Amino acid sequence: MSNNNLKVALIQHSNSGNLEENFEKSIAGIKEAAQQGAKLVVLQELHRSLYFCQTEETDLFDLAETIPGPSTTALGELAKQLNIVIVASLFEKRATGLYHNTAVVIESNGTLAGKYRKMHIPDDPGFYEKFYFTPGDLGFEPIQTSVGKLGVLVCWDQWFPEGARLMAMAGAELLIYPTAIGWDPRDDKEEQVRQRDAWMIAQRAHAVSNGVPVISVNRVGHESDPSNQSDGILFWGNSFVAGPQGELLAHGSEENEQVLVVDIDQNRSESVRRIWPYFRDRRIDHYQDLCKIYRD
Amino acid sequence: MSNNNLKVALIQHSNSGNLEENFEKSIAGIKEAAQQGAKLVVLQELHRSLYFCQTEETDLFDLAETIPGPSTTALGELAKQLNIVIVASLFEKRATGLYHNTAVVIESNGTLAGKYRKMHIPDDPGFYEKFYFTPGDLGFEPIQTSVGKLGVLVCWDQWFPEGARLMAMAGAELLIYPTAIGWDPRDDKEEQVRQRDAWMIAQRAHAVSNGVPVISVNRVGHESDPSNQSDGILFWGNSFVAGPQGELLAHGSEENEQVLVVDIDQNRSESVRRIWPYFRDRRIDHYQDLCKIYRD
Repeated sequence: MSNNNLKVALIQHSNSGNLEENFEKSIAGIKEAAQQGAKLVVLQELHRSLYFCQTEETDLFDLAETIPGPSTTALGELAKQLNIVIVASLFEKRATGLYHNTAVVIESNGTLAGKYRKMHIPDDPGFYEKFYFTPGDLGFEPIQTSVGKLGVLVCWDQWFPEGARLMAMAGAELLIYPTAIGWDPRDDKEEQVRQRDAWMIAQRAHAVSNGVPVISVNRVGHESDPSNQSDGILFWGNSFVAGPQGELLAHGSEENEQVLVVDIDQNRSESVRRIWPYFRDRRIDHYQDLCKIYRD
Repeated sequence: MSNNNLKVALIQHSNSGNLEENFEKSIAGIKEAAQQGAKLVVLQELHRSLYFCQTEETDLFDLAETIPGPSTTALGELAKQLNIVIVASLFEKRATGLYHNTAVVIESNGTLAGKYRKMHIPDDPGFYEKFYFTPGDLGFEPIQTSVGKLGVLVCWDQWFPEGARLMAMAGAELLIYPTAIGWDPRDDKEEQVRQRDAWMIAQRAHAVSNGVPVISVNRVGHESDPSNQSDGILFWGNSFVAGPQGELLAHGSEENEQVLVVDIDQNRSESVRRIWPYFRDRRIDHYQDLCKIYRD
């Protein structure tokens, strides 16, 4: 089999309260990526704003926008101009009082190829997402694009092997996780290392179990807690691309803004799944209980 | 929460064509483990024999035994004598022409606590297991013992997040994988590293996704291919224990026989699942297709 390289780019940056400045960073990254020959660019989760879920504030729903809306229009023009596919992550206002954490895929001709609404929603101190986001109702459906069928998932989804599996079973050729994850600065170094390593291991394992590359894009920098109840979140970067055996193809910085450009051999999954044919051997006759909350 | 340590031991050794010699190695390891205070000992996959699945030979069915049978009797006496729980891995003869790859759990009073018949069966050059082993029919059921509820799985199962999840959902407090995995010596070093790393990542991710410790025990040493069609298998050792965030608590050698003894804090899962409550957020309303072979 010949190589069939897809050049992808991951845009990792810090954010501030200035929405325009944040968007300019994303756009500058996309332009740099295109200049380096990338055909697919992935942005981090909720890249237009601070990670606003550190507190529960009704005013913050003002950050949401419709899809299609201002961001998809701007990104659509950029995608068309640069002939590039873009995966972006938006705070979607679907109706009055109904919001989602939604990833959009913009085709290289500027059209909206599809969207994914985050299915698994976290809620823990500093990450009050259940207040803001209704769990997605679109299921785990990959989105067809000119660069392949993209299994787009978002952040907390990355801890659930079920989402990755369902995307791969529907033909996803890449798994993509825009993310906003970081440390509680009050945790000790050992706990921080365990958390970061667990985050990488869990996602690299999705690559292994499904024989498919994984792209994960996280933000960097410290963001304060507006309520001053905590020391805020130190986003840990470490954006990465793993090949279909979980091997690291690219690995970003823990602290710095970065445009990470890397080639993915899209034929590699074909060889890997021939030597590790997990799809052949799944015991679907004994998997029914996966649709239960617990087996008690 | 106070610490609640369980001392576990992993017996990693090489095997020869001499069955008695192999069993003596396992027994010596168990005795050493008990002497070091272990309360749970895990043996590698098919520890009584060479990894005989490199070829398909009807004579090799002679290696199989009933359960209960000679091995469970011998291990039962040992377990009682040492007051230790043992997880062993046997080639089970269930009936004429019906065989399984079966793990047994021996209680510290010498009785058989339960058995698990390997559910996912591999078959690729050098690992012709579908010839020897009927896929298990007992499902993914943890086994209650005096040291906790054990989620015993076997080798190829380790690549399937479904098995780990179902065990954890049924209350398994530890996931345990007796294993026989190694390299094709003809593969280049880079491929070998990818395979070994993928093997560790996939299993450590089961710990992460389910907030449960994982014990994996592999054999070491080179075993020739009786058919001379290949260069045999170089078993890669690397037996390990991971905590419920996937962190390595113990990590064995790649080449040497070893009795790896380590403390597992059984209360750690309680804290980890409070900060990472994945069981809370599973989208069981969208998981039905996990019971399909493929979503097409």
